[in-house]
Amino acid sequence: MTAQSAPAVQPVQPVPSNRIDLRSDTVTVPTPEMRLAMAEAVVGDDVYGEDPTVNTLQQTVAELLGKEAALFMPSGSMTNQVAIAMHTSRGQEVICAEGSHIYEWELGMMAAFSGVVPRFVPAPLGIPDPQQVRRAVRRSIHQSPTGLISLENTHNKMGGTVIPLDVMHAIRAVADEEGLPLHLDGARMANAAAALGVSLKEVAAPFHSVSLCLSKGLGAPVGSVLAGSKADLVRAHRYRKMLGGGMRQAGVLAAAGLLALRDGPARLKADHVRARRLAETLVEAGYDVNLDAVQTNIVYATIPGAQQKVSAWAEQGLLASALDVDSVRFVLHYQIDDEMLERALRVLRA
Amino acid sequence: MTAQSAPAVQPVQPVPSNRIDLRSDTVTVPTPEMRLAMAEAVVGDDVYGEDPTVNTLQQTVAELLGKEAALFMPSGSMTNQVAIAMHTSRGQEVICAEGSHIYEWELGMMAAFSGVVPRFVPAPLGIPDPQQVRRAVRRSIHQSPTGLISLENTHNKMGGTVIPLDVMHAIRAVADEEGLPLHLDGARMANAAAALGVSLKEVAAPFHSVSLCLSKGLGAPVGSVLAGSKADLVRAHRYRKMLGGGMRQAGVLAAAGLLALRDGPARLKADHVRARRLAETLVEAGYDVNLDAVQTNIVYATIPGAQQKVSAWAEQGLLASALDVDSVRFVLHYQIDDEMLERALRVLRA
Amino acid sequence: MTAQSAPAVQPVQPVPSNRIDLRSDTVTVPTPEMRLAMAEAVVGDDVYGEDPTVNTLQQTVAELLGKEAALFMPSGSMTNQVAIAMHTSRGQEVICAEGSHIYEWELGMMAAFSGVVPRFVPAPLGIPDPQQVRRAVRRSIHQSPTGLISLENTHNKMGGTVIPLDVMHAIRAVADEEGLPLHLDGARMANAAAALGVSLKEVAAPFHSVSLCLSKGLGAPVGSVLAGSKADLVRAHRYRKMLGGGMRQAGVLAAAGLLALRDGPARLKADHVRARRLAETLVEAGYDVNLDAVQTNIVYATIPGAQQKVSAWAEQGLLASALDVDSVRFVLHYQIDDEMLERALRVLRA
Amino acid sequence: MTAQSAPAVQPVQPVPSNRIDLRSDTVTVPTPEMRLAMAEAVVGDDVYGEDPTVNTLQQTVAELLGKEAALFMPSGSMTNQVAIAMHTSRGQEVICAEGSHIYEWELGMMAAFSGVVPRFVPAPLGIPDPQQVRRAVRRSIHQSPTGLISLENTHNKMGGTVIPLDVMHAIRAVADEEGLPLHLDGARMANAAAALGVSLKEVAAPFHSVSLCLSKGLGAPVGSVLAGSKADLVRAHRYRKMLGGGMRQAGVLAAAGLLALRDGPARLKADHVRARRLAETLVEAGYDVNLDAVQTNIVYATIPGAQQKVSAWAEQGLLASALDVDSVRFVLHYQIDDEMLERALRVLRA
Repeated sequence: MTAQSAPAVQPVQPVPSNRIDLRSDTVTVPTPEMRLAMAEAVVGDDVYGEDPTVNTLQQTVAELLGKEAALFMPSGSMTNQVAIAMHTSRGQEVICAEGSHIYEWELGMMAAFSGVVPRFVPAPLGIPDPQQVRRAVRRSIHQSPTGLISLENTHNKMGGTVIPLDVMHAIRAVADEEGLPLHLDGARMANAAAALGVSLKEVAAPFHSVSLCLSKGLGAPVGSVLAGSKADLVRAHRYRKMLGGGMRQAGVLAAAGLLALRDGPARLKADHVRARRLAETLVEAGYDVNLDAVQTNIVYATIPGAQQKVSAWAEQGLLASALDVDSVRFVLHYQIDDEMLERALRVLRA
Repeated sequence: MTAQSAPAVQPVQPVPSNRIDLRSDTVTVPTPEMRLAMAEAVVGDDVYGEDPTVNTLQQTVAELLGKEAALFMPSGSMTNQVAIAMHTSRGQEVICAEGSHIYEWELGMMAAFSGVVPRFVPAPLGIPDPQQVRRAVRRSIHQSPTGLISLENTHNKMGGTVIPLDVMHAIRAVADEEGLPLHLDGARMANAAAALGVSLKEVAAPFHSVSLCLSKGLGAPVGSVLAGSKADLVRAHRYRKMLGGGMRQAGVLAAAGLLALRDGPARLKADHVRARRLAETLVEAGYDVNLDAVQTNIVYATIPGAQQKVSAWAEQGLLASALDVDSVRFVLHYQIDDEMLERALRVLRA
Repeated sequence: MTAQSAPAVQPVQPVPSNRIDLRSDTVTVPTPEMRLAMAEAVVGDDVYGEDPTVNTLQQTVAELLGKEAALFMPSGSMTNQVAIAMHTSRGQEVICAEGSHIYEWELGMMAAFSGVVPRFVPAPLGIPDPQQVRRAVRRSIHQSPTGLISLENTHNKMGGTVIPLDVMHAIRAVADEEGLPLHLDGARMANAAAALGVSLKEVAAPFHSVSLCLSKGLGAPVGSVLAGSKADLVRAHRYRKMLGGGMRQAGVLAAAGLLALRDGPARLKADHVRARRLAETLVEAGYDVNLDAVQTNIVYATIPGAQQKVSAWAEQGLLASALDVDSVRFVLHYQIDDEMLERALRVLRA
Repeated sequence: MTAQSAPAVQPVQPVPSNRIDLRSDTVTVPTPEMRLAMAEAVVGDDVYGEDPTVNTLQQTVAELLGKEAALFMPSGSMTNQVAIAMHTSRGQEVICAEGSHIYEWELGMMAAFSGVVPRFVPAPLGIPDPQQVRRAVRRSIHQSPTGLISLENTHNKMGGTVIPLDVMHAIRAVADEEGLPLHLDGARMANAAAALGVSLKEVAAPFHSVSLCLSKGLGAPVGSVLAGSKADLVRAHRYRKMLGGGMRQAGVLAAAGLLALRDGPARLKADHVRARRLAETLVEAGYDVNLDAVQTNIVYATIPGAQQKVSAWAEQGLLASALDVDSVRFVLHYQIDDEMLERALRVLRA
């Protein structure tokens, strides 16, 4: 069989201009360049470890995060749950901040698969106090032993808030004293790096394992990567397969992920500026927003009758998420430009 | 933001002509047409149910299989394990044929996630006897109750063998009498349909749920679909999310899957003919092959020193799988044409 | 084989007079009357349902609690965990008060066996607010569905505090509206009944299932009972067997349990009076005790250097539990009489 | 409080002379001496490790079996399942003989709690071939890794058959080469020791952990013991607590267990002789019995219409177990003397 002739890609999906989707940074559609990369990707069977584009992506992430190895998976929930499985054994506790994604939005999987329960520490603005982390470690034989400490940076439910480097290092010190592994749910760690003005590697440094989403702020259509030590990732590989995350010619996805890694981080600062502007406009319009929590690309507003409000805005083309009876979330991303933002603000002010 | 200009796709990955990969039908690379479809797919966030290409794929599969609904997932292991979870509760037994993929190659996930154990029935040529299925049902309160009967058609480990329609219907009758759900691991059910000369719908008819792989004989790069009743698929959706199988703009994968569904089934008959020719050649060359088991695209040969033999062939560009100390598997697929087959046969005869 | 001759029981274990054990109400030793009952119990193989003393105990508890059926088990942890398993499926949430025994002291078993996670509601003085219970119910498909609401009465970690009848009924109303089962961890429900001045049946009435410990305030050496509907208990029976709680001639334990049920409840009021006296003495001695929480037989004091203090008292024959760096628990029970209490108070005052 | 006066134990439960119960060796009722021991046992709260009779029992078993430590539990299912949990991690395989109790009669608990699946090896007369054990070890990353090898001696379902010492040692050699732990389900290991004419310690020697039932042939009313290394038993202690096996004043049971250990083993040889006599009588009466499998106290007969036959015998006072449509099991124990056996034989011959 000889080399295949090149297909001619037709004009692709426009970003719909009649709606402004602020429900999440997961709603972006692939750029033309990403689509081209996916179409041209050299692939192989990744279940045999033979997809060169997947391998390049994994190596790239490992280097960017300063870890020995990395593993590509279809979602951030899978990278987190594989990390929990690889660090714990049944019946242990996972220390995490209140409102953590691994508990709130991953459907009890820590219990159903790993057989572990959460142990919460308070986290004002998403930042756990290292001394409270230490007190949350269980040591009695009458209690469930602690198996893992997990942080989330930025912390989605607290408003995309950022844990400072010194706090992360202080919690790593606690982990070391207690002989515990430390995991980062870094779905939006690139936002944290942008807000802190540091590299991804600096954010990842205090952690034994890190999960990074390519499909949120970074803009790839599908995928997340778990990075860590080679020894840990051998177990992660088995758990990924157990969860059904072993994909065949996954290079078509990894190709887009490589572009997301190349171009995504530099664009995040602009999302943060726009989020700030949105938050201030909401306050001006009389809504209750904790501006101290607006540190990256997420804005939470307390709005009684959230669901009705969100429905009313949707009729005007503005989409946001009603997360509770009185809570609405807006998320900025790179497919919201200044013009779209201004249109959104006009709707919110009305 | 306006419609994006069309990228020019460059000549894409040729199927390597210097090697003949018979390790599995999962090793195919996407065709130019698939790549184009992926590049042009209209997508959305499937976690919100908004990816139109995924929705089209799911509807297409549901119709092809004669079920109410279908759900796209990244792998066949995931569709099977989600099906097991959705039909069972912890501590039950799953009746399946000896050598079933759900047990042999899905890494204990039936236990680790669903908390269930297998109950094997003998299956000469992959075909369980309905009466033995009936006897395998547990009824005593001192035993683990049966929660599910699962069949595999074609049966990979028995040699890609086909369960006849009447046997499937007889087992469904047992399931009905016992009030048990019946699942089909239909990773290669299109091969079964081709061998039986019936439609996919006829193969799927006796089952409450069916998993179908797009990435094996049908040739898509990634993906599998679970079909069943709407009520069952509500639970399946939750389990897919728990396993981390909720992907964002999964339409890029679904687009290739749609082509695989359109073009794949008609090509399988040729794979079966080539498999037969390969098997007969192996016998002529003095190897031990059960020709009765060569019914579709898979050939098993008993070859002492399997690993060394496979390594020697690999040096000559022919890849096969050594699955045990004395067992070698060859799998035909649509990227093996007659010319490549003849080269393979020359290597085997040498 | 003829009737066996009667052995002559020798003077049995005295309650040690040189130490006053207030660590828990689980430390009592069987009374002579209990020992006699155990020695004379008519027994059978309870795995076959043939132990008449176990059957009598189960029927007695079912009647006392106003439920259809009851099942004897070796511990309160087992009755609770069986109840959780029988009401839930993997990946669900169990709503419970902060500090609940099913989470704090049952070693992650809700996750490891049932695959469920806790969803906490605040509970000042151990009393959850029904409206907060309602808000804790999850309804989004992006979240783990609620499977069970579980209350603890009296609430051990909050100080043996009592949930009033009207609060329990209001939470049952929430459960009914949401279609959820309601379980009572009633390890010390007899203390709640004594404090409320109502029958066990009135405390049990709002619940679909109730676990009651015979080995805490009621004074039996071993055992706990789960009561509920006949249909639920069929599943409970299977889960008990899975956990290894099926015992053979368990009537020897049930015989003591029957006496505990007959005599225990009437003695609890005296324990409560003594606990109050102990708490007031601690306050007089300068320790920090929340007297509002001293409602039954448990007293918590905030004492910096708890471990050292407890060790010092132990040298003088007074045993208490240091549960945290600054928290000490005292539990009264029927083998602490007034004279022993006075000696304890002298130690505490010193 | 002073020493309690001695109760006068009344004549206790006679072994019913009107029925001959051969359903299992678990149906024995405690002897007068056991009852006396239970009534007089010095006890404490075993959850705090303070029950002296439990501690004595555990030390006694550890010494008898030549292990570092032992742990008392309410049932043999619990000791086995705790052993499985302590040796494995989720998603592994447990190699065991076909028909093993840990799979057939422990209700899927290996999956539901430990998340592991069985990997069966054939075992004619209950004796697995060491070479087949070796081949059952999984080594591919595409397969579930082996976590444990578990043997059952005597093997209940194969007829109370005995694994010879040299076979057990050969399997231990395989375990050592593969770096795997080896567990013995020794529910009836005392029968194996009696049949082999060796000590319990010799039977236990090849194993990392051993579970021994006090309530089967040895005759105690309740209880089983897990023996192994100190390090393993620390984990076992946690798992026992998770399963709800932590009992309070368990010394009342342990006291009977100590007598069972002292007196039980010497009586087993007589049960074996009686079982042989029963088997030969069945053959003479025209029933199909594999006499080669009648090695200890269990007899299986193939009898079409098993359930009806067993019901008919029951009306004449003879109880046996119909385990399948054509299989009946008889189990001898020390409360079946020669006179009762002769009566049973008369019923069988009729």
